[in-house]
Amino acid sequence: MDIKTIQKNLKTQKLSGRLFMFGNLFIDEDILPEENQIRELTGFTGSYALLFITPSKAYLFVDGRYELQAKKEINTRRIDIVKLSEISLSAWLKANFAKSAATIAYNPWNISQNTLAGLQATLPKVNFIPEEKPEMQLSAKPVKTFTHQKKFTGKTSKEKLTEVAAHLKKCGLDAFLVTSAAAASWLLNLRSNALPYSPVLRAYVLVEKSGSYKIFAEHTDIPTALPFAKLAEILPHYAKLGADFSTMPAIISAFAEKINNTPDIISCLKAAKNATELKGIRNAHLRDGVALAKFLYWLSKNHKGKTETDITDKLLDFRKKELNFYSESFAPIAGSGTNAAVVHYHADEKKPATLKKNSVLLLDTGGQYYDGTTDITRTIAIGTPTPEMIEKNTLVLKAHIALATAVFPPRTSGNELDLIARQPLLKQGLDYGHGTGHGVGFFSDVHEGPARISINAKNSAPLAAGMVTSIEPGYYKENAFGIRIENLYAVKPLKSTELLHFEVLTPVPLDKRLIDKYLLTADELNWLNRYHRQVFLSLKKYLTRQELEWLREACAPL
Amino acid sequence: MDIKTIQKNLKTQKLSGRLFMFGNLFIDEDILPEENQIRELTGFTGSYALLFITPSKAYLFVDGRYELQAKKEINTRRIDIVKLSEISLSAWLKANFAKSAATIAYNPWNISQNTLAGLQATLPKVNFIPEEKPEMQLSAKPVKTFTHQKKFTGKTSKEKLTEVAAHLKKCGLDAFLVTSAAAASWLLNLRSNALPYSPVLRAYVLVEKSGSYKIFAEHTDIPTALPFAKLAEILPHYAKLGADFSTMPAIISAFAEKINNTPDIISCLKAAKNATELKGIRNAHLRDGVALAKFLYWLSKNHKGKTETDITDKLLDFRKKELNFYSESFAPIAGSGTNAAVVHYHADEKKPATLKKNSVLLLDTGGQYYDGTTDITRTIAIGTPTPEMIEKNTLVLKAHIALATAVFPPRTSGNELDLIARQPLLKQGLDYGHGTGHGVGFFSDVHEGPARISINAKNSAPLAAGMVTSIEPGYYKENAFGIRIENLYAVKPLKSTELLHFEVLTPVPLDKRLIDKYLLTADELNWLNRYHRQVFLSLKKYLTRQELEWLREACAPL
Repeated sequence: MDIKTIQKNLKTQKLSGRLFMFGNLFIDEDILPEENQIRELTGFTGSYALLFITPSKAYLFVDGRYELQAKKEINTRRIDIVKLSEISLSAWLKANFAKSAATIAYNPWNISQNTLAGLQATLPKVNFIPEEKPEMQLSAKPVKTFTHQKKFTGKTSKEKLTEVAAHLKKCGLDAFLVTSAAAASWLLNLRSNALPYSPVLRAYVLVEKSGSYKIFAEHTDIPTALPFAKLAEILPHYAKLGADFSTMPAIISAFAEKINNTPDIISCLKAAKNATELKGIRNAHLRDGVALAKFLYWLSKNHKGKTETDITDKLLDFRKKELNFYSESFAPIAGSGTNAAVVHYHADEKKPATLKKNSVLLLDTGGQYYDGTTDITRTIAIGTPTPEMIEKNTLVLKAHIALATAVFPPRTSGNELDLIARQPLLKQGLDYGHGTGHGVGFFSDVHEGPARISINAKNSAPLAAGMVTSIEPGYYKENAFGIRIENLYAVKPLKSTELLHFEVLTPVPLDKRLIDKYLLTADELNWLNRYHRQVFLSLKKYLTRQELEWLREACAPL
Repeated sequence: MDIKTIQKNLKTQKLSGRLFMFGNLFIDEDILPEENQIRELTGFTGSYALLFITPSKAYLFVDGRYELQAKKEINTRRIDIVKLSEISLSAWLKANFAKSAATIAYNPWNISQNTLAGLQATLPKVNFIPEEKPEMQLSAKPVKTFTHQKKFTGKTSKEKLTEVAAHLKKCGLDAFLVTSAAAASWLLNLRSNALPYSPVLRAYVLVEKSGSYKIFAEHTDIPTALPFAKLAEILPHYAKLGADFSTMPAIISAFAEKINNTPDIISCLKAAKNATELKGIRNAHLRDGVALAKFLYWLSKNHKGKTETDITDKLLDFRKKELNFYSESFAPIAGSGTNAAVVHYHADEKKPATLKKNSVLLLDTGGQYYDGTTDITRTIAIGTPTPEMIEKNTLVLKAHIALATAVFPPRTSGNELDLIARQPLLKQGLDYGHGTGHGVGFFSDVHEGPARISINAKNSAPLAAGMVTSIEPGYYKENAFGIRIENLYAVKPLKSTELLHFEVLTPVPLDKRLIDKYLLTADELNWLNRYHRQVFLSLKKYLTRQELEWLREACAPL
């Protein structure tokens, strides 16, 4: 299928447009390249976009992370880029179709019921019609599954099902349909090899109030798994059925008309990690820190002539040597020189760029360990950085510290914290075009809600004790350089109060060559020196003599 | 009417409870003492509370400002205090009545349609019934009205009506019913003597898409004003009628069944002050600052033996001498010693307390000028303050500066800024039980939406250029002392960017005897010294030689 064919069909069927949401029947979760219809149609390789095709035009909607990348990847003579930082999809559709009795087609498997209802409410005159034979867009590649052991999860699947069943009884529901792959994987303590960077099993689970369940999945080795199409038969049997409309494909409403929109309790249960999970997460971060320290020492000796992919390959080698390592947690980002200004840059694997001298390398990578998921960004000087790079990196560090040291009451949403991080940059008239933090799963998706720290995620779920989040402010100067400083943090109570604060999980030195200590307040400098002392004490036993010498210097107080 | 009679009636009528919202048919606006049914029933004199009476008990709901005051004022053996900081009214009702088929009576004139619908949605099994002959609870005192002149407002009422009419056409409405007294007053450039501290005219205005209008008001000198009961006859004539359900009494829904919930455009138009209004506001603050400076000089020489009411009377005398002064903008608060820990303390007029030595005086007052409304809190050392008072006042100052210097993007809500102010206190495990700021009207209500800066006001209206807000963090130690530092600020664009920041309006020195400069960062100390220099330059021409000497010392750099 290509855009021209789609446009021809639109004309034949007298349709005003066709909306393409990103992904497949697992709304807003990771997908395989062969499942990426927007990539197939436009060439855009980023991890999120929307596409709208009219009989005469095509529009690709991208967020702040991808504005530069989209420009490079797509044919801008044929496809217009719409910036989601400036206008939302619904506002854009409203501006273009509010007054006409337009008919817009969509795939009911890959739009959530909430998103569809929102579009219909915004555009009451527009007729939104589902495609006739919609595809789930699920790869047919065979999937192997495996159990996530209790020594890692801390709870058996049966215990988790019992908790959920009790909650269903409390809500007066006969059953709840779990449509989030991460939630289904957590609930059943199952994982799979379906995706390269996330170990989730892509399944739906129908949990009954008795605690028994049915699993829906395709192309897996689970003998009891039912095909998704069976939902149309099974769901009508339940009088009081719930599902979370933010992750439930709109097509499910056609299967079970009386389904109730019920917030996904499983996503909240899993977001607040239990004591076993938190212990594992701290250990996994320690091992990941060891891999990073060994890598950073190696890089300090060997960066000359290396390419961006040499770098990420080498870091993967170090991670592979660590206990419980399973895979990377996302496609590694190593952006050198001007490439670092592309927020979610991916190196060209065929022609990777050589590290640029007298610039900075932005390195955003992570690991999946059976006992935890990591995600870290370090910005590293290669040669002699410019004074501007040092100034901007120091501002980003101030932003990072401002939020890392924040204290906040219960029921605080991420959008109520985001501007604390941005102040040091905003006061200079600077900003970054992405959120400040995202929730992180447990041997699961590296971006995992419900909590987010973003001024644009109004009313997102409150941060609660046991949640893990990234803090990752940045600064990007187009065609020049890019900076980001990212650690993961666990949310925890402040002493014996009901107040919350952040416990740092990531133990990896920050590049002091990029820090101007005279721009830091006394409190900020103390934070940095205390952090480095903690990093040194955590990692020192796991390094060779030479690596240790490097670490001692890297962690020495400023 | 008393609580016992109400309880007897509840039993006769087999009702589970009677809900009393605060106020009259002007939802959430100021009321006169004789209109305050909750005060009549309980003795509580604060500016906000809710009351719920069951056949056997009574519950007074108060927010963080009034927890201490309520304890002092009501008979706690007969009435339980419920803290709104811990549980909302709807959560409390849910906890007590969710499972029963309870019947709860309410007055449909003094609950908004939104609040009622929210309670009904939370408690689907409860039967909420309006009282049979509900009272508007509007005082019968004759009201004199007067025109707010164009030299102050910058726009004629006709120009404002034309703007609103154009908006109605755009929304496809035939008419809009303005149910906010502040909005009605702004729209018609009318004011009145109905209330002691707010000059608003308590009227509803029905604006038609032609720009013509009808005014509803009682006991006024406006010959064309219609009684409110006429709404029942007039509203059904309009096919497409709008009103803002957040300020529209629920009874209006019974008058006009097909009324649409339309956000009150007038509240937004009036919140962003025009150039004439802003010029007036700056001038009014300058004159108010002169009155405060003269008063503070006088206080420095004369505090011995003075009572809390002597203080506020004297300050009023100074304000009265200033051009365009009309009245105080709220009941002045002068809290000395332990009284200052009561956030919204009011001195006992019959037995006012004498200023306590070696403590702090919290002085929260404001003025209504024809060209602007002011609101300022200063905490002033009387004698020698304790080191703890100095430390806590400095923390509150840090909190004030943190928000006063904040920069934020468009569409930022107040709840997304609140925690910036609280950080210096929360990091010490301290907090204050009230919002950080409130919108301020223009020769109108001193607390005026739609914007607020409060972590509890989730999703409040975004701050926009031209709005005026207070910044007023505090710290209150029960039975010891209280501190608050409040200035008003105008929201304005940062240079030529789309970013916003705060322009300080209030030019009055902060008491340096209560500031420990060694707890301030270099940036904070610079802010303080720059602020004091600006205060000195603004006020110096308007003072006597002795006052000027005092000011020079008060504003000298630390």
